[in-house]
Amino acid sequence: MCYLITLEGGEGSGKTTILNLLAEALEEKEFEVVRTREPGGIDIAEQIRKVILDRANTAMDSRTEALLYAAARRQHLVEKVIPAVQMGKMVLCDRYIDSSLVYQGFARGLGMEEIYSINKFAIEGYMPDLTLYFDLDPEIGLSRIAKDEDREVNRLDLESIKFHYQVREGYQLLQQQYSNRIKVINAENTIEEVFHDALNAVLTFIETNKNNS
Amino acid sequence: MCYLITLEGGEGSGKTTILNLLAEALEEKEFEVVRTREPGGIDIAEQIRKVILDRANTAMDSRTEALLYAAARRQHLVEKVIPAVQMGKMVLCDRYIDSSLVYQGFARGLGMEEIYSINKFAIEGYMPDLTLYFDLDPEIGLSRIAKDEDREVNRLDLESIKFHYQVREGYQLLQQQYSNRIKVINAENTIEEVFHDALNAVLTFIETNKNNS
Repeated sequence: MCYLITLEGGEGSGKTTILNLLAEALEEKEFEVVRTREPGGIDIAEQIRKVILDRANTAMDSRTEALLYAAARRQHLVEKVIPAVQMGKMVLCDRYIDSSLVYQGFARGLGMEEIYSINKFAIEGYMPDLTLYFDLDPEIGLSRIAKDEDREVNRLDLESIKFHYQVREGYQLLQQQYSNRIKVINAENTIEEVFHDALNAVLTFIETNKNNS
Repeated sequence: MCYLITLEGGEGSGKTTILNLLAEALEEKEFEVVRTREPGGIDIAEQIRKVILDRANTAMDSRTEALLYAAARRQHLVEKVIPAVQMGKMVLCDRYIDSSLVYQGFARGLGMEEIYSINKFAIEGYMPDLTLYFDLDPEIGLSRIAKDEDREVNRLDLESIKFHYQVREGYQLLQQQYSNRIKVINAENTIEEVFHDALNAVLTFIETNKNNS
């Protein structure tokens, strides 16, 4: 039962909260779970993330940003994800390649194909086994963030609302293209309902694949 | 007379010294020259360079490193090189894409083709007009560095001598493949001779191309 399961969605979609609830529920079912997010506490990747999210770096070119995300992804993958999966663990990861395809490829207009090419170099075919996409109206997501006093506002939160709508459109396109891997969760529902749907999607996936792993 | 001219070579090949001498000589001939090196004082690129060269980052995966170099290259290109060339200046740049092809692609064994693919994303076809490759025995280069007390030892200097020989082999292969763009300068000669040969190569290039620019 060693899988890489990724959680994707726009800002304030609740995926981080759900990730923790999912991990607890799966641990109760005796799965060994690793909770992570890019850059996931990997020192080199955290250093890269600091450069990406620094609000002072307004001169950052979008291709630079895309390459930095791919670099941080690579380091997190080899230092944390692959070793965990090899030890038979289930890895739940907050954001992965789809974030780059959507944010840089689609919303920033660099092209999903181009972004896929540099990420292919970074992940060497290590795609998620299952992806949960938390879909909601960006205005709802951003208003949730605004209420959360513990969450520091970063460079991406400062993007225009139009950008966040493009992010949603990108995710929806990607989901239609890879509907086998990417499952949509309606993130406008209550946290209990969202968690219920997410857990269901994971358990269905495990049930369907248990004879293959 | 707006060109991108890059200087390439192993550690201690003298290219930084020669770059300054070349710039002075070209300025005397009334060319407007910009001297730079990657990351060239571009704040974002310097931050990236700090991550790459930090001696503590021994866990850095070679693909992470390659993506970081491409990111720093991109930012330096758009913030410094392209604006200068557009203003009609001659840009002399200490290291560029060939360094990545040779160091990561060849010496670290990631493959020149693979490294070219991520750099293609970074530079979008912005190749050097002329490249001077300063060729010398790596043992000579490293012994020069050892004598230079002002130069801080970085993570690349700590690589094995075998690595530096592979770097030389990579440069030689690349030069043979792109002999029209890359000119070899024998960097084992005295500084006066090396400078003379380098200036000659640049002036010959300018003479040959002046009707095309």
